[in-house]
Amino acid sequence: MAEGILIQEKALQGFCEAVLMKLGVPPQDAKVTTDVLILADLRGISSHGVARLQRYVTGLKEGYMKPTDHSTLVRETKATALIDGGQSLGQVVGRKAMEIAITKAKETAVGVVTVRNSNHYGIAGYYALMALEHDLIGMSMTNAAPLVVPTFGRTAVLGTNPIAITAPTSQETPFVFDMATSTVPRGKVEVFNRQGKAMPQGYAVDETGADTTDPARVLNALAKRLGGGLLPLGGAGEEFGGHKGYGLALMVDVLSGVLPGAATGLQVYGDERRPDVGHFFLALDPAAFRPLDEFKRDMDRLARELKDTPKANGQPRIYVAGEKSFAKMAKYRTEGIPLGAKVVENLKQIGEELRVPWPGP
Amino acid sequence: MAEGILIQEKALQGFCEAVLMKLGVPPQDAKVTTDVLILADLRGISSHGVARLQRYVTGLKEGYMKPTDHSTLVRETKATALIDGGQSLGQVVGRKAMEIAITKAKETAVGVVTVRNSNHYGIAGYYALMALEHDLIGMSMTNAAPLVVPTFGRTAVLGTNPIAITAPTSQETPFVFDMATSTVPRGKVEVFNRQGKAMPQGYAVDETGADTTDPARVLNALAKRLGGGLLPLGGAGEEFGGHKGYGLALMVDVLSGVLPGAATGLQVYGDERRPDVGHFFLALDPAAFRPLDEFKRDMDRLARELKDTPKANGQPRIYVAGEKSFAKMAKYRTEGIPLGAKVVENLKQIGEELRVPWPGP
Repeated sequence: MAEGILIQEKALQGFCEAVLMKLGVPPQDAKVTTDVLILADLRGISSHGVARLQRYVTGLKEGYMKPTDHSTLVRETKATALIDGGQSLGQVVGRKAMEIAITKAKETAVGVVTVRNSNHYGIAGYYALMALEHDLIGMSMTNAAPLVVPTFGRTAVLGTNPIAITAPTSQETPFVFDMATSTVPRGKVEVFNRQGKAMPQGYAVDETGADTTDPARVLNALAKRLGGGLLPLGGAGEEFGGHKGYGLALMVDVLSGVLPGAATGLQVYGDERRPDVGHFFLALDPAAFRPLDEFKRDMDRLARELKDTPKANGQPRIYVAGEKSFAKMAKYRTEGIPLGAKVVENLKQIGEELRVPWPGP
Repeated sequence: MAEGILIQEKALQGFCEAVLMKLGVPPQDAKVTTDVLILADLRGISSHGVARLQRYVTGLKEGYMKPTDHSTLVRETKATALIDGGQSLGQVVGRKAMEIAITKAKETAVGVVTVRNSNHYGIAGYYALMALEHDLIGMSMTNAAPLVVPTFGRTAVLGTNPIAITAPTSQETPFVFDMATSTVPRGKVEVFNRQGKAMPQGYAVDETGADTTDPARVLNALAKRLGGGLLPLGGAGEEFGGHKGYGLALMVDVLSGVLPGAATGLQVYGDERRPDVGHFFLALDPAAFRPLDEFKRDMDRLARELKDTPKANGQPRIYVAGEKSFAKMAKYRTEGIPLGAKVVENLKQIGEELRVPWPGP
């Protein structure tokens, strides 16, 4: 981080909120949108953090992201709901949808809420984490811009379509699992490109569909829409289970795209000026199955069993999903959030343009 | 298949049912158990097919699988249920649980049923497929005997913990996705061992936790409980997303183990004479979100988009999850189900012992 900076969460929060408010976003919605971005930075998913503020600034300016909440409840049953996002900010709609899923789970033990006609909602984990505050199991998925090539294909059709799930514990760190269904995010290919290094095979294919170690070729082909893209979890072909990652990505598009009637595959950003992103949220009450304290006790037991099991030679510890991110949160909340020089430069530019003073170095 | 045979589904079905009935399983339950085994063979998952009949014969003989249905409904809400399997056959309990989930989904749009105190239930896909007959989305997961090593570990703690999900289509093959959360099943390591070949890296680790290409070493270490085991989807470490496969396997143990209060991790078969396997079933009604015909139409559209997209150089086609298995089913139902010589030998032995005539060559 030689060229980067450290900035306090609160200062960064105030800046992002002010930027969004300048673009007509009401204070409460600016806060939610900022919360999701900053949580990504705090949890070490900087690709989805304030580095993406520009994306929202552009969306709001160009009008395909509405500054105020235009979402509507289209259909509802005791356990389910369908929301039309009305092209509002994905974070605002996503939070609202997960809140409904949580309310339903408290009344009916399960709540499933899907969203169509939304925008990029940030990290899937944010919404799944909301369930933990209510001692519920939470789940969240979204489709996204096509970046992932189906097994045996050579054109990106599916998004990195993430799956997030959380479950409460007692003493142990809560189970917080938030994965993209590609082997790596595009950001990882960009890192190799900046460093001028060859990538390992299994990350991406070129425009002919061949597994390649050349990051520049992949990024160039994607940018020019020549083909190529990221490989699903498991890599190329079927030898290492690439068809499984592909199936998971497709599952996410079925649940968050087809189910709410949002766009899917290539159509999610088929009209770039009118994205139609879909989301899926689920909340489930463990207390419908067994006493909550027993559930949490057994979550602890399973986590400890995994962590106490013998380590591979040379490995100091075994993690349970969520632990690394909670450790980063604690560190960054004390020391400040690290931002790369390029990100800072972009944020300063946004601030200058909208007359919001940059609060950091 | 030079040393193997082809056998008609109906003949094999009659044989397995007769074997189970000889061991005290009522006709209807013998049929369900056999259905699940044979569906695995028909769909090309021969590791979970009649090759496993011995496992059930042994379980029934030794008494840790009850021949008659001892399952009980422990708790119930409009949308959820918890079943105690009473150590009955996993297939019998699993089918019953999924039937309840389906009934609930028809009434409440969602049904979630979990099961504790059960046995090995065969392929996860069988239960998810049941939902298709009712135009529902189906999901099924189970924990299993420890075979998979957590990321940075060297002892198998988690099972190959499968995830199956299905969704109805109109003209296209239904979406049927059934994956183990390990890179490969143990059967694949056994194939390399029989052929005396080195495995690709990324399948399994040895007793020190090192990624190994030596199948004999892995199988030996597993058999003698020295450590080692299969790698989660994504392989060793985090470079190719092995922590994602590990997280998915853990998610399955949370939903199918912790949630119903079944055993988890090492405890699933902690007492080999008293397994405590857990399952998770979900049924979801797409018609709660949008008209069914629109849902199916868009499922078709997404499937066609994926299949019509340009292929990688040298690849004749792109598949959607389920297509290969449905093609195998059609072929095997016409030509007969292929069984290896060793499997046939074992089935004949079972037949001789229980005086059930073997109907094949």
